[in-house]
Amino acid sequence: MNPSSLPVSTDRLVARLEALGRVGALEGGGVCRLALTKADGEGRDLVVGWMKELGLDVVVDGIGNLFGTRAGSRPGPSVMIGSHIDTVATGGLYDGNLGVLAGLEVIAALNDAGIVTEHPVTVAAFTNEEGARFQPDMLGSLVHVGGLPLEEALATKAVDGAVLADELAAIGYAGEASIGGIEAAAYFEYHIEQGPVLEAEAIEIGVVEGVQGISWTELTLTGRSSHAGTTPMRLRRDAGLAAARIAAEVAGLAREIGGDVVATVGSVKLTPNLVNVVAARAVMTVDLRHPDEGILRVVEARFAEIVDRVAAEEKVEVARRTLARFEPVAFAPALVDRVEAVAKRQGRSTRRMFSGAGHDAQMLARVAPAAMIFVPSVGGLSHNVREFTAHADLGNGLSVLAELVLERAGHANVDAAASRGAV
Amino acid sequence: MNPSSLPVSTDRLVARLEALGRVGALEGGGVCRLALTKADGEGRDLVVGWMKELGLDVVVDGIGNLFGTRAGSRPGPSVMIGSHIDTVATGGLYDGNLGVLAGLEVIAALNDAGIVTEHPVTVAAFTNEEGARFQPDMLGSLVHVGGLPLEEALATKAVDGAVLADELAAIGYAGEASIGGIEAAAYFEYHIEQGPVLEAEAIEIGVVEGVQGISWTELTLTGRSSHAGTTPMRLRRDAGLAAARIAAEVAGLAREIGGDVVATVGSVKLTPNLVNVVAARAVMTVDLRHPDEGILRVVEARFAEIVDRVAAEEKVEVARRTLARFEPVAFAPALVDRVEAVAKRQGRSTRRMFSGAGHDAQMLARVAPAAMIFVPSVGGLSHNVREFTAHADLGNGLSVLAELVLERAGHANVDAAASRGAV
Repeated sequence: MNPSSLPVSTDRLVARLEALGRVGALEGGGVCRLALTKADGEGRDLVVGWMKELGLDVVVDGIGNLFGTRAGSRPGPSVMIGSHIDTVATGGLYDGNLGVLAGLEVIAALNDAGIVTEHPVTVAAFTNEEGARFQPDMLGSLVHVGGLPLEEALATKAVDGAVLADELAAIGYAGEASIGGIEAAAYFEYHIEQGPVLEAEAIEIGVVEGVQGISWTELTLTGRSSHAGTTPMRLRRDAGLAAARIAAEVAGLAREIGGDVVATVGSVKLTPNLVNVVAARAVMTVDLRHPDEGILRVVEARFAEIVDRVAAEEKVEVARRTLARFEPVAFAPALVDRVEAVAKRQGRSTRRMFSGAGHDAQMLARVAPAAMIFVPSVGGLSHNVREFTAHADLGNGLSVLAELVLERAGHANVDAAASRGAV
Repeated sequence: MNPSSLPVSTDRLVARLEALGRVGALEGGGVCRLALTKADGEGRDLVVGWMKELGLDVVVDGIGNLFGTRAGSRPGPSVMIGSHIDTVATGGLYDGNLGVLAGLEVIAALNDAGIVTEHPVTVAAFTNEEGARFQPDMLGSLVHVGGLPLEEALATKAVDGAVLADELAAIGYAGEASIGGIEAAAYFEYHIEQGPVLEAEAIEIGVVEGVQGISWTELTLTGRSSHAGTTPMRLRRDAGLAAARIAAEVAGLAREIGGDVVATVGSVKLTPNLVNVVAARAVMTVDLRHPDEGILRVVEARFAEIVDRVAAEEKVEVARRTLARFEPVAFAPALVDRVEAVAKRQGRSTRRMFSGAGHDAQMLARVAPAAMIFVPSVGGLSHNVREFTAHADLGNGLSVLAELVLERAGHANVDAAASRGAV
């Protein structure tokens, strides 16, 4: 056995993914385990059971975050492996679950190899990462790092009207451990990419440098309804045309700036939305993202210019509303370098990239060096019952995670372990 | 009295417009007199009553078209003044009604002046011009000119499920006169513009050269749904972006070709229509119109090229469906020239133009020389409860119509009438 590697089992990881995927399983595939529902409670029970089987010390904090800790040779902050097990309403088996269950597999392998690490190793499952039932998303990790007061978080109302504190108590996960009580010396999150880049470029491991900044704007364009047959082009105030031009130009802007800029007009609603009536009103959303705050601001400024110019040219009024604005998060460069180095040493092809979606890691990055490992998502699908990552890819990421954790946690009994595994 | 003019009364015309507007009146203004409803029946009763008061010979044909004829000094085809009295669900007082009631005012003025015309003069109100309740629109005039067999028309189902023949009988307008029995030597239709051009250019009379050709296409664009944050621009198949680019380019095409080309994307529906999801599907309509069939075909061909190019560039599939296609109609040039000459002689400012909307005149043009007179619509509004045309404008069109009818019908007793009116 290579002293820096661990005998992790991809089969065991997949078996746990499949077992957890049966909790809240949807007919025809996929899973619905919305945060703090009965299904989420059952999923937590399964994970806690596994943690206990593996000998971990399990604690639950006041917002329901689960921590299972394997002691090190000395006390202190843990090397933490985390993610979440809640899903969207039509989710898959991998998003979130992979990060938690890969953590358990690393623990299992440490146990199998009889390794004592210097630092403790903790597997964490954070509450309500998806934000599908309670807003904001990444709520549990946000509370964990002190970004949202516990009382405020507990008072959050679900989209179905339920209060978070009540739902937490109902499933038995209103824990007593203090918020932030378990400190991380480093935080690793292993996740499927949820996008198509790794698959499209046939890359095995995504080395995640950070999380993109997000800027969401809703535009309401008001023109004048008129007859499509009798109103000459020059006398129109066509809100639908203004919306179309803005959507086309914003995409052109993203393509012109290039790199990691993404711009999406995913929602457009015209009024009255009839074949022969020039639209009086258009409500559209514009989603802009970039990993660099400076560039995101440039994109936002150029976008604002496009809106002003098109609105003036088409003689429509514009009302703007910011729906969301998050600055980019950069992961710890030294840790990111190690993800890349370890993956390469293991023979994997790698690519540095930014996460386009939010993850608990971006919250943990506020209090500890954090990094993420991505593996390919077939077809780029996620938040989708057809979400899938191949066995070999799951194994690649698992091996990288295991080596990183061992490297970071330190081998207290390296010689003993090595000798037991040696030929 | 000028021998070529008639003492028409705009006040009397407006009083009839207002009286008819009270039948099916909506709270807060406007009128709902959908074809062959009880309200339409009551409106017809009012018009038939006026026709009889004016001494007209009233006949109703098999599709419910109303004809009120004032005899001439010799038999033969009539000079026909026509339009319709059905409205859309939220209509105004002018669209259609003006043409019929102005016809009655011309009759009243002929009666007042004691004029005997050579040709008969007929006022016609055609069934279901709007097409709001039964498809196709202009159904009564289409049947009148032999464009749709009576039996087929009678079997038409309303959007509310009712059969046309039953509804016609229910309101007492299943007439016995033979279809096309009253022939037109010439057909005049006096109508509000329903568009903003005359008002915008401060022109009093629109000299209508014909009706635009209409081409309606529904496009269904199919791309691939993907995550707005994790899917790079180059890996997208964004149906919403393809729709926006097509809409923007089609408007650009209309502006580039210029003249009377109008292009409208009035309806767009994205799926799933969410802020952070690249749209998988877009269904959009494209309404193209031009008075010249050759140019309309060029526009259609260029539109098809835009769709093909954008679809290829955005990697989306396209399905096309033709929703409507009507060739342009040209009115009789000699009659159009007379409209212009008479209006100018009366001191009116004029503008030649094409109708962007359909009118009964385009059906009558198949069997007789036809022409239309337009007057301004305030704000270009029509098919709208706020539809309005000023008293002076109503009078301008009425005077032009009266002179044209008298000119075309011929004065059998010109000297007597002139002497009675002379100072």
